[in-house]
Order: sequence, then C-alpha cells, then structure tokens
Amino acid sequence: MPNTTDSPTIGVFDSGFGGLTVLRALIAHMPQARFAFLGDTARLPYGSKSRRTIARYAAQSAQFLVREQGAEFLVIACNTASALALDAIQDAVSVPVLGVIQPGAEAARAASKTGDVLVIATDATVHSHAYLAACQALGLRAIEKACPLLVPLVEEGWTDHPVTAEVIEIYLNELRSEAGERGFSPDTLVLGCTHYPLLRSLFEQAVRPGAKVIDSAESTAQAAVQLFNGRGAAPAAGTSTQTEVHCFATDSVEKFERLGSRFLGHPTGNVGLVDLGG
Amino acid sequence: MPNTTDSPTIGVFDSGFGGLTVLRALIAHMPQARFAFLGDTARLPYGSKSRRTIARYAAQSAQFLVREQGAEFLVIACNTASALALDAIQDAVSVPVLGVIQPGAEAARAASKTGDVLVIATDATVHSHAYLAACQALGLRAIEKACPLLVPLVEEGWTDHPVTAEVIEIYLNELRSEAGERGFSPDTLVLGCTHYPLLRSLFEQAVRPGAKVIDSAESTAQAAVQLFNGRGAAPAAGTSTQTEVHCFATDSVEKFERLGSRFLGHPTGNVGLVDLGG
Repeated sequence: MPNTTDSPTIGVFDSGFGGLTVLRALIAHMPQARFAFLGDTARLPYGSKSRRTIARYAAQSAQFLVREQGAEFLVIACNTASALALDAIQDAVSVPVLGVIQPGAEAARAASKTGDVLVIATDATVHSHAYLAACQALGLRAIEKACPLLVPLVEEGWTDHPVTAEVIEIYLNELRSEAGERGFSPDTLVLGCTHYPLLRSLFEQAVRPGAKVIDSAESTAQAAVQLFNGRGAAPAAGTSTQTEVHCFATDSVEKFERLGSRFLGHPTGNVGLVDLGG
Repeated sequence: MPNTTDSPTIGVFDSGFGGLTVLRALIAHMPQARFAFLGDTARLPYGSKSRRTIARYAAQSAQFLVREQGAEFLVIACNTASALALDAIQDAVSVPVLGVIQPGAEAARAASKTGDVLVIATDATVHSHAYLAACQALGLRAIEKACPLLVPLVEEGWTDHPVTAEVIEIYLNELRSEAGERGFSPDTLVLGCTHYPLLRSLFEQAVRPGAKVIDSAESTAQAAVQLFNGRGAAPAAGTSTQTEVHCFATDSVEKFERLGSRFLGHPTGNVGLVDLGG
C-alpha cells in the first residue's frame, strides 16, 4: 500500500489486537502520521510461548511492517515481544524500534515517591523479568505478578464487571501480601499488558488512595513522540487532513474487526489478511 | 521411539494439554496400551483460529503421531480440532480417527429424558455448530454456548474457587434464559472442552437437581474401547505390565510437565520437544 502522505509510516506490532490501545495513544499524540498495524493473530498468544518462538514470530512480523508497509519506525506494542524479542527485532530490521517496557519503567520512576512499584503482566513477561530489570536500572524496587485471567476477562467484554473487580482484588491482595513480607512500600502500579488499559478505571478504584496507575500504552506513545522528534522525523502537522491507519492480521480478520474497535476506540476499518507462514 | 510392546500404539492429540483428561480416561479403560500424546502447545489455542489454520495444524500433528510414533489409531482429544478438522485429519493419515464430538453427543442422547441438551465449549467449537449438528442427527435439540473464561480459570488452578463457581453460574443462567425463551427443557449439560472435566464437581453443584453432566473425555474413552474392540485391535491384557505413555509438545515443555499432571492425574514424565515448523 503506497504512502500517499509526506509523513513517515510508523509500524505498530502486537501478537493480537491489544496493542491497538498503544496505537490509539499514538494517534492521539501524532494525528498526522500514517500508521500500519499488524496483529499476529494466527500465532497469539505469545504470552504462553518460549523466547525462541516469540523471537522468530516477532522478527517476521517486524519485517512485514518494514519491507511490505515501508515502516520507518517500529513500535512493539506487545509487552511479551518487547520483553523477550526486542533484540531479535532490532537485528531483523534496520529502522529504530521502540518497545513498551522501558517507557513504562520510566513513567513509574517519574510517578513513584517511595521508589517501590508493582508490575502486573502476562506469564511470559513476568518470567522474563524485563520490567524488574528496567525498574532496577532506574533505581526502583519492583515486584512483578502474572495475572493470566485479565486478558480473557477483557476479551469477554467484562471490563466493568463485578467478577473482574473481584479478580483484580485477589491479584492485588496477593501482591500486597508479598510487598508486606518483603518490606516494600509500593505506591505505583504498572499495567504491563496492552489489554489492561481497558481495566484502568477498575484498577484506579482498587489501588490504595494516592497510588498511581501507569498505563504503558500512554507512556509508550509519549516516548515515541520524543524519539521521533529527536530524530527530526516527527510527522509534520498539516501534511495530511486525517490519520491514515491500515490494519493487518495473520488470522481471524473478522474477529479483529469486531473486537478491535473496543481497543482502538473507533472502527478498525477493513483489516488485511497477511500470511507470514507457520 | 520404538514400540517395545505387542500392544498397538494409540495416538492422542490436542492443541494443548487439556486433552490429557481424555488420555487419563483412555488409560483407565486400556491400561495395557501404549500411548503417544502430542500437545501442539506452540500454536495453541486453536479455539481462536480459523478453520483453515486449525485444519493445517491438526493434520501436521496427526502425521507426526502416525509417521514418527507409529500410531495405529488416533484419538483427537481436542473439541476444536474434532469440530473443525476431523475431515482434514482423516485425509492426512490412513489410520482410524476418533474425535470427541460424536461420543459426547451419543452420551447426551443416552442421558437425556427430555431430548433437550445444553453444550458449553470454546468459541471456535460453538461457532462450528458441530455439537448442534451431532445432537440433531441423534434427534436431540441443543443450545450451545461459548464459555471462554473457563479454560484460563482452570489453567490458573482455580478449579474449586468461588470466582469460578460465580462465572459458571453466570454462564449457566444465560443458557437457562435462552432455553426458557426458546421453550426448551434441558436436563443434560455436555462439557464440550477437554479442560472442563476439572470443573466437573462445580458443574454438578450448579446444574438443577436431577440434571446430568456429560464429560466428553469419559464418553470418548468408552467409544475408543468399542472402536478398537470392533476392529479386533484392543490391547491384549497382560502384554505389558504397565501403561506406556510418551508425551510430546511443540513448545513450553516445562509448562506442560508442570501443569499437565493436573489433567493427567499423575506426572507426565519427560515431555519430548517436537518441531512441526510454523
């Protein structure tokens, strides 16, 4: 699909459509850009797969966005791929690549007064300890927890449901117990999965008064603007009258179109089917 | 792995490890057989994928069990693959293939007095309407419902948890409302997913007094014994002192070993890693 604007194309990648929450935040910050989004829906969820498999899938997906869609920047809008495959993606393409982990950790540092933060994410993200490493490098202490029920609850549409509130309460209580045992005083909760922004209001009700909830989709969009500005490549205002968004998926295009709008905040438009093999 | 017994090898296939509930039932009925189980864990869950993709994955997996493991019979211990890919699997191999749908429907016919049954399963199984068709062919009326939260709840280990009981109650109430509106009098609930046998006691508490819960893992094991007896190929008692079970997975072997024992009822032993490509 040729780029009919003067703006650079920003490629956005996720294993599924949760990364549309990151695309949504990117569009809000860069409404004049052209975006190509790929959801590797044939092979989701990455969260339960090994590092080797995730790296291979993510590299193929990144190459599609760069080679087929002409992306000049890539945002890896997938915590699992950012945690386990950022190096593999950077090796596979020659354009700048931004993941979601580092911006989330930096936002946590900016928000936390105690220096102790809680991170919730998928199994694979937690087992990688990528957030722990990123937080520690910034001088924070962090406790991570896998919350595997939250993605299915969001996909079931139970984003404002008493069962979801109860599950969140159970997970947060387990985190608070661990924090207490280890002598931590956490005041910041990082939502380390692109599905979780849809539960943001439930999390804000569930955390203790004064605690901050960090939405890594929003943090990543802010980091993307800084990165692209720093390279003199920010999409120029006025070169396009409307954000240009092209969505692609490797399977289940109909489901992508049906559920994607919840994450994106408006219809996805026609979603192109892409065969990456495998 | 050579077959060191005189018994035929029975290949058992699932997209993940839920099918170990079917293997467990098969072992109980045929303790002298040799079993090779493959979980296509690199590509799970099949439930959210298209028919074309599921058929390709399932055919590759079936070929591994027949060609590499010498399986002389195949049990497709996966509702989604049985619903969407039984033909593709039968085309891909030359041995007899048994799915889980038909045995489940036949057990429902044997159990139901009213002739009205409820079927719960994954999204893809429900959208295939394979249970509806199998039930109707046997003279039953059926209402199907996708219950996508139950698999993650089982995998989280919440098999006897108040949240799981609440989710089951919500799903069953939705089914009962639909049954009421359509003038059905269901007295039988078919568990159309291999994860659900682990929730059997919660389901038995949640259904109305006198209603039957059909565990398709158990129904399938009974059908397998009949099929193999009918072909004169039932494993001979006494040819082996112990059931021989070899488990394979396409990814996440460690997770398979860790979680698989919950489904199998005893340790899985070492799980072999298999690369089917993709």
